[in-house]
This record gives sequence, C-alpha cells and structure tokens, in this order.
Amino acid sequence: MKRLAVLGSTGSVGEQTLTVAAAHPERFSVTALAAGQQVEVLAEQIERFWPEVASVAREEDAHVLRARFGKKVAIYSGEEGLQAVATHESDLVVAALVGAVGLAPTLAAIRAGRDIALANKEVMVMAGALVRREVEAAGGVLLPVDSEHSAIFQSLSGQRLQDVTRLILTCSGGPFRDEALWPSERLRDASVDQALAHPNWDMGAKISIDSATLMNKGLEVIEARWLFDVPPEQIDVVVHPQSIIHSLVEYRDSSVMAQLGLPDMRVPIAVALAHPERIELEAPRLDLAACGHLDFEPPDRERFPCLDLATRALRGSEAAPAVLNAANEVAVAAFLEGLIPFGAIADTNRTVLDAHLADQAGATLADLAAVWAVDEWSRAQARQACGITAPTPNPDGSQRVG
Amino acid sequence: MKRLAVLGSTGSVGEQTLTVAAAHPERFSVTALAAGQQVEVLAEQIERFWPEVASVAREEDAHVLRARFGKKVAIYSGEEGLQAVATHESDLVVAALVGAVGLAPTLAAIRAGRDIALANKEVMVMAGALVRREVEAAGGVLLPVDSEHSAIFQSLSGQRLQDVTRLILTCSGGPFRDEALWPSERLRDASVDQALAHPNWDMGAKISIDSATLMNKGLEVIEARWLFDVPPEQIDVVVHPQSIIHSLVEYRDSSVMAQLGLPDMRVPIAVALAHPERIELEAPRLDLAACGHLDFEPPDRERFPCLDLATRALRGSEAAPAVLNAANEVAVAAFLEGLIPFGAIADTNRTVLDAHLADQAGATLADLAAVWAVDEWSRAQARQACGITAPTPNPDGSQRVG
Repeated sequence: MKRLAVLGSTGSVGEQTLTVAAAHPERFSVTALAAGQQVEVLAEQIERFWPEVASVAREEDAHVLRARFGKKVAIYSGEEGLQAVATHESDLVVAALVGAVGLAPTLAAIRAGRDIALANKEVMVMAGALVRREVEAAGGVLLPVDSEHSAIFQSLSGQRLQDVTRLILTCSGGPFRDEALWPSERLRDASVDQALAHPNWDMGAKISIDSATLMNKGLEVIEARWLFDVPPEQIDVVVHPQSIIHSLVEYRDSSVMAQLGLPDMRVPIAVALAHPERIELEAPRLDLAACGHLDFEPPDRERFPCLDLATRALRGSEAAPAVLNAANEVAVAAFLEGLIPFGAIADTNRTVLDAHLADQAGATLADLAAVWAVDEWSRAQARQACGITAPTPNPDGSQRVG
Repeated sequence: MKRLAVLGSTGSVGEQTLTVAAAHPERFSVTALAAGQQVEVLAEQIERFWPEVASVAREEDAHVLRARFGKKVAIYSGEEGLQAVATHESDLVVAALVGAVGLAPTLAAIRAGRDIALANKEVMVMAGALVRREVEAAGGVLLPVDSEHSAIFQSLSGQRLQDVTRLILTCSGGPFRDEALWPSERLRDASVDQALAHPNWDMGAKISIDSATLMNKGLEVIEARWLFDVPPEQIDVVVHPQSIIHSLVEYRDSSVMAQLGLPDMRVPIAVALAHPERIELEAPRLDLAACGHLDFEPPDRERFPCLDLATRALRGSEAAPAVLNAANEVAVAAFLEGLIPFGAIADTNRTVLDAHLADQAGATLADLAAVWAVDEWSRAQARQACGITAPTPNPDGSQRVG
C-alpha cells in the first residue's frame, strides 16, 4: 500500500490525483491532504479518504473542520499545516499546490526524504538549483507530473543519464503560432481574449498567457534542466501543434525515445503514483491512424523571445530563473489587467533579467530566503518596468504563505 | 570487454555489426566469425579482428583459410562450423545469417545460454514457439536487431511486460500503399520492378516483395509475438510512410512509448551490442522540425491480405507460422521468376495455410525436425498451388545447411 500525501488536494491536479488513487484502493491510501480555502471540497475529500492529517489555509476554517471531524483527523492551518502534511508519514508527496506557496512545504518533504510527485512548476523554476541539491542530499525521487516532463521521465526509463545527448520538449506553439496570422507587429498588440485561446489544453489564465508567449515552454526548459540534471545546451524545443508526442529524449547512439498519448493529465499523474509500475487507467487510447498526421516545426525565437530568455537565465546564474519567473508573473498580471500590451511581457522579462545579470551574475540560491529575496527584487523591478506603483495581485494566487 | 560471435559476418547486418564494434575497441572484441561463401571478405575480417574461431560454408574454402592463417585461427566449415561459432565462448552471439540456415546455430547458441542479438528473422518466424521455450529454459536474453523490434524492445525498457496492452508495429506501406494508384485489380498484376521499388529502405529482393505484399509486416507480427511473449490480439500495425517512428508500445495507463530515428540499421545494432548501456554512434540525428510531418493510416487489410494471414497463422498452431513462411518463400520466388502474378502470392499463402489448419490445427513444434517437416510439407503444397513441379531456389539463399 502506497501512502499518499497531497499538497493542493482541491486544485485540478489534486482532484485528479485523488480520482486516480480512488480507482486503486488496493494500492493507494491517502494519509494527508492540504487545501487552501476550498474548505467544503476538502471536507468531502476527508469523508471519502479519511486521511490522518489535513490542512487548510486559514485557522478559522481549521476550527470548523475540527468541530466536524473531531479527533478522527488532525486538522492544521497555514504554513504549519502545509509542513505537517508535507512531512507526515507517507511514501509519496504529491506537490500540487499552485505557485510559490508550494516551495517551502515541497522542500520540507524533500528534506524528510520523501519521494515527490511534482506538479508545482514554481518549485523547480524558482529554486531548481537548491531543490536539486536537497534531493541529492536526501535521496528521494522526483517524479514529474506534467505531460512534457513525465514524457521525458518515461523516455529515460531503464536508461543511464550519461547516455543522453538531448531532451526535446514539444510545444503546441500556442494561439499565435501561425506567423501569417500573427506577424510581429500584430502580435505585439494581441488582446487578452486572443491570448487566452489555447488550442489543446484548458488551463488557467496565467499559464494560458505563458503558452501564448512561449514563456511556459521556457519555464519547462528550466524545470527540465533541474529535474533531470541536464545542461541547458542539451535541451531543445520543437513545435508540435497536436500535442500527441509529449516530449522526447535523444541518446548518444542517435536513438530517440518518446512518450505519446492524447492530452490527459491523469496519465502523468498515474505514471507518477504507480512508479516504477503502471496502473490501469480508463482513458481514451491513442489511435495514430485516426490522428492522420503529426506536425513539427522549429519554434519562432524571434516572435517568441521568452524562450531564449529562459535559456539565458539558466546560463546566467542560479537565481536568474527565479528572477525571470517573478518578472513574468508581474508582467502577465499587468497584461491581464490591460496595463501593458502583449509584447511588453517579453520586454519586461528581458529588462529585469538583464538588470539581474548585470548586477548579480554570480547569484546562488543558498536557501529559501535567497529565493524570496530575488523574487521580491525582481517583482519590484518588473513593476517599475511596467509602470506600476502598487504590487499587482498574482492571477493564480501564487503568493507566499506566512 | 564484451566478446562477440557473429553468425553471418559478411552479410549486410554482419558487416555493420563489425563496423559498430570496431568503433569501440575498448568495449568489444570479436571472438568468432561465420560466413558463407564470401571467403575473401571473411579473410579481411579475420585480419582486422583476429577471432579465435572462424567458419565458412565449404570445406575447400576452409582449407584455403587454414593455409593462410595457420594456427592463429581455428577454421571450420559447414554446419559444424556454424555450431562452433555459435557455441564458442562469447558474451553475445549476433545471429545475422539470412534464412533458415540460421535456425540450428541460433538454437545452439540459445541452448548454450548465450545472449542473442537476433537479426535472422526466420528464427522467430519459423520456430518462434520452440525458440521461446528454449530461451526461457536457458535463461539468455534475446535482443532484436531490426528497426521495428528494436523500437519495441527500447520502448519496453524499464517496464513490466504485464503492464503492456499493445505492441504497435509501424509499416511503411510499401510501394503499393496508395489505393488511388494501386486499386486491387491493378495491384494483382503489378510487375516485379514495381514491387521491388521500396520507398525507404534498400533491401534484398525477397524482403522487398514481402514489403510490397505486407507479408513482411505479417512476419514481423509473428516475430513480435514470440520475441516479447505478447498474444497476437495485442499486436497492431499502423502504416507510417516516413518510417521515422520505428514502432510503439501502449501501456495499461494509456501511455504510449515509441522509438524514433532516421532509418539506419546501425542504430538497432548498436542498441543490441551495448545493451543495457548505450554507445556513441556517428549517425545522422533526427530533426523532427526538418521532417515537418509524420503520417499515419490504417493498413489496408483488403488489398494486403498477407497481414491477416500472419495473425491467423499465430492463432492457428505453433507450426502455422512456419507453414506460412515457407509457402511465402516459394510464392515470392515464383513471382520473381515471372511464374505467378503478384496477387497470387497472397493466394498461395492462404491456400497452403488453410490446408495446414484444416489438417494439422494442433501442430506443435517439439524440435527442429518438426520445423523442417512442416517447412518441406508447406513448400510442396505451395509449389503445387503455383503450378510448379521442380523445387524453386530461394531468392536469398535461405536453404537449410546439411
């Protein structure tokens, strides 16, 4: 029986994790659940899985849950609650919080030696170098939970890292892929609605905009670098509009391994939960003949400069990816509020990254405090670049707790 | 140092095997070489690799080689020579003979507990059930050396067989793929030259015709069934004209793993030689963006009935694949000699298979003698079906030795 702790159990990945786990009660028990403010959803999850520990963001909500569940479930709140769930006795911690709030509890779980199913992108984007060191020190396994990195993880199965010559991330290309429809001049002033129209996946606003700028793929390059310990010059991107090949790994003998499937988040979740085995999943099967064709093209690095900014950040300093991520969060929020044009997202990111690299080219990430420091510095710089005076709320709520 | 014995060292796969091995002298030594009648090529190979044992088909050629190499290399001939090379002290036997001649020495190597890099299709096509039992008894590993089965082997890396739901072999579709150009009536009377024009691989006459009838893919379904111990109903075929995805494996969680690359036999050879590691290979790298698109369509089982004959044979009896293979060899030879039209190849195969299944539906393959018996029976039936009285020479020389 694999004991699961789920950080972010009421979010999309968290709920799908519980669905997958519930279909295999002989394999999985859910021992700890952490949610934010969706208290009623969490209460239903508690009644379904009866975890030993649960946590919510606010103490007043914890109070209500304690009254409801008595001594059957230990209820915590806030940052302490996240830590309690992260470090509760378990075999696998599913890190499915959204945003920077997940950083501290995920690191706590890593330090406790837990295996981590990692859906919380910001953990590797903001603190990849630090997390990599902590994982190596503690000896747990990082199991990626998103389609591209899960594909790479699966394509590395049974292989040695030293035989890898290239990771190739596939990229849908986003809503502005077609240069004939979206030449640079027009792209610069794309509207929020146009940018939110992602072709293949139904996602939140922040990540949809990131897909439109290709910053999302840039952030995935950063994640891949730290998840798999592969240098940035060995990480490539190819545009593949159908999102059927989820990513690929090239080996020194020129053989290329890939993972394919219809877009369905339950698959990478099931892969991570069951690793190193696989479990039955009632999901639509890929039929290549029905697909007809799969298309590929190089990414347009001129129209989508965010992609190269990610590689520059990786080469620049340990802290630079956190700088880029924070600047991008501010710029995307400003775009969504109509304060800056679409083209200014990349401009903002470049301006802030340049300023960081000019000042702090050797910046390392010794601890979480260092991450928060560059994050705050970068947000201030980005607000300035966007002409904003007050802090902008993050569109997906990825504020730090505590 | 991995000690290699190569059965069929002067053939295409044999020569490429030696090229790959020679590029990694720190990893591989060549300890035994078996050739047929290309004595001068073998002599050059002996001078390059100085194996301990070598073998040729004819005793008179062995005599010449003994005079040339003295006591430095033990030279054998005929069936005894093949056995000597197959069972010589080695870590891996590369079974790269063409045709039925490879069956006995490959089985000898398997019984001696050797790992086998298997390029010799007929071994699994004619005697798959027998070979499977012998491999399981002796405990060696079968490493496939052709692009499709190597792709499946690589896609199974690090996975459990019980998690597999489907093997998906890709198929170029052959020169008659386009139904608009090759409707059934026209296909029936396709000429030898038209049938020999394979789009992606430069191959011998027999295998080119098999690609044109899709019998080649049918034979690969048979090989896959016995190489990987997967039942025929879990083996699918998809037409993929570019031959970039070499084959795929679907798992119970709906995840599909695939191996891709430019068509290059050295890749599956390098994979088999280096397993479980990988070695550097100077080969052109796959560039998906340069490919532009990969196409897929279902195989046309009406115009290419040989594909379903293979599945019927697998379901019919242990011996039926050998029957189908022998009938097909006779029919293809008859077609190449202008004795029967293209369409009669499938007709012949069906007639002989039907006759076998009507008579000997429970036929098993207890030993090699049983294989030879059904092989001979089938050839006689096929000659009758083709209206031939004398035995037809096999186009690729796949006669039995001894």
